[in-house]
Amino acid sequence: MRAVDIIMKKRNGEELNESEINFLIDGFTKGSIENYQMSAFTMAVYFKGMTDLESTYLTKAMLNSGDVLDLSRIDGIKVDKHSTGGVGDKTSLVIAPLVASLGIKFAKMSGRGLGHTGGTLDKLESIPGYNINLSEEKFIDQVNSIGIALVGQTALLAPADKKLYALRDVTATVDSIPLIASSIMSKKLASGADAICLDVKVGSGAFMKNVEDATRLANLMVEIGKNCGKKMTAILTNMDEPLGFAVGNSLEVVEAINTLNGNGPKDFMELCLELSAYLVLDAGVCETIEEAKALCIKQIENKEALASLAKLVEAQGGDASFVYDVSKFAKAKYTIDVKALKDGYVGFINALEIGNAAMLLGAGRARLTDNIDHSVGIVLNKKVGSLVKKGDVIATIHSNKEDNSKEIDMLSNAYCIQNDKVESKLILKVVK
Amino acid sequence: MRAVDIIMKKRNGEELNESEINFLIDGFTKGSIENYQMSAFTMAVYFKGMTDLESTYLTKAMLNSGDVLDLSRIDGIKVDKHSTGGVGDKTSLVIAPLVASLGIKFAKMSGRGLGHTGGTLDKLESIPGYNINLSEEKFIDQVNSIGIALVGQTALLAPADKKLYALRDVTATVDSIPLIASSIMSKKLASGADAICLDVKVGSGAFMKNVEDATRLANLMVEIGKNCGKKMTAILTNMDEPLGFAVGNSLEVVEAINTLNGNGPKDFMELCLELSAYLVLDAGVCETIEEAKALCIKQIENKEALASLAKLVEAQGGDASFVYDVSKFAKAKYTIDVKALKDGYVGFINALEIGNAAMLLGAGRARLTDNIDHSVGIVLNKKVGSLVKKGDVIATIHSNKEDNSKEIDMLSNAYCIQNDKVESKLILKVVK
Repeated sequence: MRAVDIIMKKRNGEELNESEINFLIDGFTKGSIENYQMSAFTMAVYFKGMTDLESTYLTKAMLNSGDVLDLSRIDGIKVDKHSTGGVGDKTSLVIAPLVASLGIKFAKMSGRGLGHTGGTLDKLESIPGYNINLSEEKFIDQVNSIGIALVGQTALLAPADKKLYALRDVTATVDSIPLIASSIMSKKLASGADAICLDVKVGSGAFMKNVEDATRLANLMVEIGKNCGKKMTAILTNMDEPLGFAVGNSLEVVEAINTLNGNGPKDFMELCLELSAYLVLDAGVCETIEEAKALCIKQIENKEALASLAKLVEAQGGDASFVYDVSKFAKAKYTIDVKALKDGYVGFINALEIGNAAMLLGAGRARLTDNIDHSVGIVLNKKVGSLVKKGDVIATIHSNKEDNSKEIDMLSNAYCIQNDKVESKLILKVVK
Repeated sequence: MRAVDIIMKKRNGEELNESEINFLIDGFTKGSIENYQMSAFTMAVYFKGMTDLESTYLTKAMLNSGDVLDLSRIDGIKVDKHSTGGVGDKTSLVIAPLVASLGIKFAKMSGRGLGHTGGTLDKLESIPGYNINLSEEKFIDQVNSIGIALVGQTALLAPADKKLYALRDVTATVDSIPLIASSIMSKKLASGADAICLDVKVGSGAFMKNVEDATRLANLMVEIGKNCGKKMTAILTNMDEPLGFAVGNSLEVVEAINTLNGNGPKDFMELCLELSAYLVLDAGVCETIEEAKALCIKQIENKEALASLAKLVEAQGGDASFVYDVSKFAKAKYTIDVKALKDGYVGFINALEIGNAAMLLGAGRARLTDNIDHSVGIVLNKKVGSLVKKGDVIATIHSNKEDNSKEIDMLSNAYCIQNDKVESKLILKVVK
C-alpha cells in the first residue's frame, strides 16, 4: 500500500476502506508517512469529504493511535459531555455534579483554555487547592467512591489527532466537517464513556457559522459515536451571544454555583438542564426527556447537585467552603462599567469579541504557556433582546489593571444595539 | 504574508496575485515554506485551478528560482522545441539540424530518458564520442559558429520546479493542468529561446488522455509563453501508437538519419515537417506555413539538413561518419520477430506498453541511475490501420539477451487487432 495511491483515491472522490485509513494514520503517527502527504490528503478531504463510514474509520484509527482509557473498573454507566467551544461556557461545572448526584458516573478529562474560549480546568483552579492532576488509578477510584471526577488529561489520548490538528492548522484544512468530527470524537471515545452528550455551538462566536453546517457536524459525530457503540446526543446551541452573564474564571465558577443554587441565568440554566436531561435519559435512569428534566430540576431544588460539586472539590483537594460562600472567591481590583452608546434593543453580542476582551484582561491565554488571572473577566448586564437606554450599564469589566480603554472599546463594539427587538433562541436542535 | 493564508485563498477559489505566488515559491525554494504547506497548496490548485495570469506568475517565479540562460551573445533568433513525452519520439534529432540548416539558431538543452520515454541525450550518445557536456560558454560559441548545439543541462534551471515536481509526484498532484504547464514552461523559458514549439501528446501513451485536456494544456502554455514575450506554437499529436517505427536509442537515431535522407516513416516525417515549419515561420524566415513547409522539404531533399546533423555530431566530438553510414551503429545480438495472433486491422498500439518493453530490454531506465544499452529496442513492422494476417510479423525485438518471452508477450498485448479499419490521424490541432 502506498500513501500516494490513497491520496489519489480520495482526490478522485472514491471511498477509502478501513485498512487504507489505518495505513495512513498509523504511518503518519509513526512518521513513515510524511506531513506533506498527510496535508495533501486533508486538502483532498476538504474538497471531497468523507462518508460516515470513512469518518468512523478515521476516528477509530486516531483513537487507537494512543491510550484508550479503560473505565471498566467503574461500576455502572459512565457519561461525558463535550462542547465545541463557546464564550462563557461553564456548563460542565453544573452538569457534572448534577448528573453525578443522580448516581450516574461522570468521569471527565478536560482541557485548558486557549484563545477566546476558557477551559474547565482553569475555572476549577479558581478554587484554592483544587488539584487537576490525578493518576488514572486515583481518577477511577474517585469516580467509584463519589461518582465524579474532573481532571486534566493524564494518558496520551489520540496523539494522531494532536499531530494532525497541528498540521491542519498551518495548511488551511481545519474547517472540514469530517475532519472536525473525527478529531473531536477520537478524543471523546478515547476517554471511555458509554454515553456522550455534545454541545455544538452555532453562530458568529462559534466555529460553525450556520445551522446547516452545525447539523451536518452534529449528525456525523452522533453517527460515529453510535458506530462505536456509544449512546449519543448532540444539541445545537446558539452562540450569537455569550452563555450566561459571566466570562472569566472565578466569575464563571460563581455563576455555576449560583445556578446549582437555583439562581442561574435563564439561558444557562436552560442549557444545563437540557444537556443533563439527555445524559440522564441515555444512562437509562428515566424513560422520557420530560421525566429526566424534572429529575434534574429536583436535584437543584434539593441542593443535591450543589453537594455533589462540594464533594468533588473536596475530593480533589480544593476548599469546599467556597461552594457554600461565593464571597470567598478572589476579586479583581477594579470594576468598570461599560455603558450603552444609544437607545435600542440588544440585537446581537459578538461572543468572539467578548472572549478576546476577557483574554486581554488576563482571563485567557493567547499561547498555551501564558499564565492566567482567575479573578478578572467580564459580567454582562444586558443580553440579546434587552431594551437599553443610552448610558445604561451593559456590562462590567473586572480588571487588575488601571487602563482598560481597549477592553471598554471592544465591549462597546461587541454590542449591537438596534431598533427592532429580536427573540434569542438558545437551543436550536437536538440530534439523537 | 503567511503561507496558510495563501493556501486558504486558493482553497476558497480566489485568484492569487504575483507577490503571493512569489512569496510561496521563493519560500519553498529556500525552505522557509514547508513541503506540507506546498503540497496542501498544490492539492488546492488541483481542485480550484489557476487563471492564465496566476499560471504565468507561477511559471515566472519558478523560472527565477535558478539560473536563466542568457543567449544574447548568440546572433539572431533562437528557437527551441519541447515534447510532453512520447514513445519513439526522435523529432529533435531531425528538427534541430533541419531548422539550423536554414540559419535559425537551435540552442537546446535536453534531458535523459526515464521510464517508458527515451531521452534525446541518450539517443545522441549512440554515436561514439558524442559529448553532451559543454560549458555554457562553449555551448553559446558552438551555436554562434554552426547554428546548433544539443547538450545536457549545465546550469541550474528552475530548481523550484524540480523540488515541486518531486513533491507533486508523491502527493497525487501531478495531473493538474496549470501545474504541468508551469513546470514545462519554467524550464523552457529558463533556456532562453525566442520562439518555442511545443508537441503536446494526446492518447493512451501520453500524459494527456483526451483532446480536451491537451487543448487546455496547449492553450495555457502558449498563453504563458506569450505573456513572457515568446513566439509560441503548440501542436497536439496523437499518441495512440508510437511515433515512427523505431523505439530504442541507436534504432531511433538511424530512423532520424533515414528521415533526413528523405526515407523516414510517413507519420514521423509529417510531424517533423509540421514542427519545423512553425519554428521557421516564428523565426520570421517565411510569411506562411505552406512556404515554411516547402522550405523544410527542400532542406531534406538537398541534404542540407543531414549535413547540419553531421556538423553537430562533429562539433560535439562524435564520429560524423555514422551520419553517412548507418550500418556502423552497434547492433543487438538477437532479433526476434513478433507475429500477429489473428487476422484483422491494427486498431491501436499501446505506446506505453511498447515503451515499457523497450525499457525492459535495456533501452531505457527504470531509475535515473540505471545504465542503458544503446543497441537494443523494438522496430514496429505494422502501424495503426495496417491489415495483418495471423503469423505476419508485426514487430521485431532487438535484444542482447536470450530470453525475451516477457517482451514478446508485451508486444503481442500492445497490438490491438480488430475487424474494422481505423484511420489514424497524427496531427490533431495547432494552437498559436
